[in-house]
Amino acid sequence: MSMRGQFITFEGTEGVGKSTQLANASRTLEELGVDYIVTREPGGTPMAEAIRELLLAPRDEPVNEITELLLMFAARAQHLHTRILPAINAGQWVLCDRFTDATFAYQGGGRGVPKERIALLENLVQGEVRPDHVILLDAPVATGMARARDRGELDRFEQEDLEFFQRIRDVYRERAIAQPSRYQVVNAARSLEEVSGAVSGLLSEWVTQSAVR
Amino acid sequence: MSMRGQFITFEGTEGVGKSTQLANASRTLEELGVDYIVTREPGGTPMAEAIRELLLAPRDEPVNEITELLLMFAARAQHLHTRILPAINAGQWVLCDRFTDATFAYQGGGRGVPKERIALLENLVQGEVRPDHVILLDAPVATGMARARDRGELDRFEQEDLEFFQRIRDVYRERAIAQPSRYQVVNAARSLEEVSGAVSGLLSEWVTQSAVR
Repeated sequence: MSMRGQFITFEGTEGVGKSTQLANASRTLEELGVDYIVTREPGGTPMAEAIRELLLAPRDEPVNEITELLLMFAARAQHLHTRILPAINAGQWVLCDRFTDATFAYQGGGRGVPKERIALLENLVQGEVRPDHVILLDAPVATGMARARDRGELDRFEQEDLEFFQRIRDVYRERAIAQPSRYQVVNAARSLEEVSGAVSGLLSEWVTQSAVR
Repeated sequence: MSMRGQFITFEGTEGVGKSTQLANASRTLEELGVDYIVTREPGGTPMAEAIRELLLAPRDEPVNEITELLLMFAARAQHLHTRILPAINAGQWVLCDRFTDATFAYQGGGRGVPKERIALLENLVQGEVRPDHVILLDAPVATGMARARDRGELDRFEQEDLEFFQRIRDVYRERAIAQPSRYQVVNAARSLEEVSGAVSGLLSEWVTQSAVR
């Protein structure tokens, strides 16, 4: 296949099963004989992973909101231009754990950074590039957080967290509604079998479509 | 003094004597009893210094041009908002080794990044904030590079380097000409005594002006 690969991102709030569905999607592509890579944001190249560490490192100094936003997009520029686009241009499919939708949802919806600022950096870094498909794993925030807590990833679980993640879920859903051709909202509150079946179904459909074109 | 401090930046190509003149300016402010800090870009806070290390670290991975630009401005946002502006608002003067003019000169003039992109990030990070005074230490590129070589900071000295630094000097000079009220071009090809005298004279003048206001 010398055809351009597809760029598919996985989005959603805590505990919706992104990692599980990335693994499931990988198996599906494998079975269909599609060449692919799995990657994540922020990160995906040694330099972008170094920026990720810088973002996540605990520090005494309060991190300025714009600093955080610029670091996020610095990592994204590096990841997109040195890993994602070369893979796609070589015909590989790219499965990516989070991308710019997460910035709109977490920094925008969660922290209140004006979305115009995020859009400005999106255009600067990505030009016209957007994911071909976004799989939004969607579940009530309380459901996801209960799962994350059961896995030991959350020790506290407060009203404030619920409201913060509710704003994030709202942004994700608004974006999906605004561009239905690019977003697939998968109900992630169902059983693992049902969610995996839905995600595999989407992948198979896209593989068929891209083979026909 | 509860008055707002002045924000003064030092710019110029290699070997023009920025470090020497920062030290000289510090002594002048000290003698005049002005409270001040000395800082540098990229860097100036622990987090911004960590970004600087990330920028300067040798690595196999080619660094995307936009990644570099965003990292530079991420460090600047952190430095400006957590160190420079609090100092100025507390009445301290800030002497800074390089600032956004260097980005226009080095990334713009030197590497060819379109200046509109730099201006866009300048506005995002700084809003209306600009240095009160920019001291541009200006000397023919060959003069500065010969000095840097004599100090052992340059081992090679090629035609290509001359042209690269010539473009940087050109951008600095264009910016100074376009905004004469904010830029002071100091002829740095003269003797150390003459250059130091000129810089101290400017500082004294600005201290007098700010006391009168």
